[in-house]
Amino acid sequence: MNVTTRPVDAVSVHPAEALAAVLAQELAATEAEIAARMESPVGLIPDVAHHLVDAGGKRLRPLLTLAAASACGKVTEGAIKLATAVEFIHTATLLHDDVVDGSSLRRGKRAANLIWGDKASVLVGDFLFARAFNLMVETGSLQVLDILAKAASTIAEGEVLQLATTNRGEASRERYYQVIEAKTAALFAAACEAGAITAGAPTVMVEGLAHYGQKLGLAFQLVDDALDYGGLTQSLGKNTGDDFREGKATLPLIIALERAQGEERLFWQRVLARKHQDEDLAFAMQTIRLRGAVEATLDEARAHVSDAKAALACLPDGVIPQLLANLADYVVSRLN
Amino acid sequence: MNVTTRPVDAVSVHPAEALAAVLAQELAATEAEIAARMESPVGLIPDVAHHLVDAGGKRLRPLLTLAAASACGKVTEGAIKLATAVEFIHTATLLHDDVVDGSSLRRGKRAANLIWGDKASVLVGDFLFARAFNLMVETGSLQVLDILAKAASTIAEGEVLQLATTNRGEASRERYYQVIEAKTAALFAAACEAGAITAGAPTVMVEGLAHYGQKLGLAFQLVDDALDYGGLTQSLGKNTGDDFREGKATLPLIIALERAQGEERLFWQRVLARKHQDEDLAFAMQTIRLRGAVEATLDEARAHVSDAKAALACLPDGVIPQLLANLADYVVSRLN
Repeated sequence: MNVTTRPVDAVSVHPAEALAAVLAQELAATEAEIAARMESPVGLIPDVAHHLVDAGGKRLRPLLTLAAASACGKVTEGAIKLATAVEFIHTATLLHDDVVDGSSLRRGKRAANLIWGDKASVLVGDFLFARAFNLMVETGSLQVLDILAKAASTIAEGEVLQLATTNRGEASRERYYQVIEAKTAALFAAACEAGAITAGAPTVMVEGLAHYGQKLGLAFQLVDDALDYGGLTQSLGKNTGDDFREGKATLPLIIALERAQGEERLFWQRVLARKHQDEDLAFAMQTIRLRGAVEATLDEARAHVSDAKAALACLPDGVIPQLLANLADYVVSRLN
Repeated sequence: MNVTTRPVDAVSVHPAEALAAVLAQELAATEAEIAARMESPVGLIPDVAHHLVDAGGKRLRPLLTLAAASACGKVTEGAIKLATAVEFIHTATLLHDDVVDGSSLRRGKRAANLIWGDKASVLVGDFLFARAFNLMVETGSLQVLDILAKAASTIAEGEVLQLATTNRGEASRERYYQVIEAKTAALFAAACEAGAITAGAPTVMVEGLAHYGQKLGLAFQLVDDALDYGGLTQSLGKNTGDDFREGKATLPLIIALERAQGEERLFWQRVLARKHQDEDLAFAMQTIRLRGAVEATLDEARAHVSDAKAALACLPDGVIPQLLANLADYVVSRLN
């Protein structure tokens, strides 16, 4: 046809969507598995699980498993099961997190704990977590079970560490990195590593992809925490200020405290002791901007993105490694 | 020495204690493993876990794993790990149950949720659950992982089913058995089955011990539910009335409702709809006694005990099978 087509601008396509397009068949199989395996004769289980899973999210973690497997040569049935397991572990964590944080919104919908109550969220989370292990057992790989079982206990350890250090007036960079390594980066790393193993990849590729996942996870969480203070625009989005309200010592706050002048130090200590008001958020964001704390957080995220991309050198050239690199870049660019 | 010794009265020794004495070395190894594996650099985890685990309980489920392994010929290091994993799954369930039920007492101590809060109980439960899977992976047996992962999702399913049917005004015997099969009998069965497998037992013994565990678990839960109405003495113990207060449709209530006369039916329906007062407990217990509902519950438990003991025919004669039979008898006799 004699039609002038506009060239596809690679940058304008969301890299997770580009990855999803390349792995469309495998992702569709994963979506089918997710839907099938959250079924139960106990109707409350699919009700709660569908609410959260159907609300979307980009299926980032299962996509990493599929992409890692594909980049290493083949996406087996086992990789589909693991991608499903990874999404279930993530969903279980979200359900329990929302109970712990008393959240009211999740993925733009009312949080499950508000609709069905904390009890249902706790127990359906337990079910999805157990179901994830059923799926892993079905792959028949003890190596993969080992990786994901360790990730699961690391995640729980990170969540407890975060709980134990929130509202204690502490703001330590070392402690912050311990928490995000555990609660976020561990599952990103395990998702990639497990995918590579299902494809029978050599150790260098398995380790390289695990490293990619870990660094991507760190960058992802840093950006998430920067967005909680409005990101670079410092605008009050609907998800702004949650960490501030909860007195969580995330990196923007830690950096602002490091650079605090005059009474700012007292202000941040009041926030950490949870003796602040919601109305203090405007001042917090102004101070964060003044001290360049979001920019500095972003700089750290960029360094992790750079490490993540370097780790992809373990893979032969191809579409998937390129898209994984784009994904890493995107994680930081979404700040703007 | 010329001293008249009093013969040991086998009946006067608690059968779980007798089993613990015969398996003293294996149980000590399990206790050491339990203590070692609940350690974490995140201090809140051992704090919460020790509180519950050190409060005792009879270690019934890990004892079943050790006894099953021993009866089948050998207690391997894998059996010790599995016994630990089984206790962790049970402990995680207790932590989450107490959050869901808003309990104030557990094993005679203040419930963890009251001391450290619901959040800590949810997250430390998650950690212990994940740690259980770490231990199972270390055994290197996919067969055992399959059994315990299925038990874990069955337990969660049972807990959700109980939540979904409580306070709905329903009282169905079929639903009741579904719940206790899942939330109690499944782990008893898996504990026995997994123990037998670690000893390399033939299928007939593995299946026989799984059947024993399942029936023992049913009897155990039936008796527990009868004790909530004061057991045969109908005395008001400190653990009496919890199910009544929560409007849970346990078997004594279901039987009392089946046999209700006059206004009793309306009374029980009020209980099930949770429109009753704590003061109504005295009338409930009087009615339960009048209708022989505890005796009838006990009769059903006795039938399961009889099945449990019959299942032990799969084992060669020996001390352990005899003690397992005594344990089954004891489960019902503790009602008196």
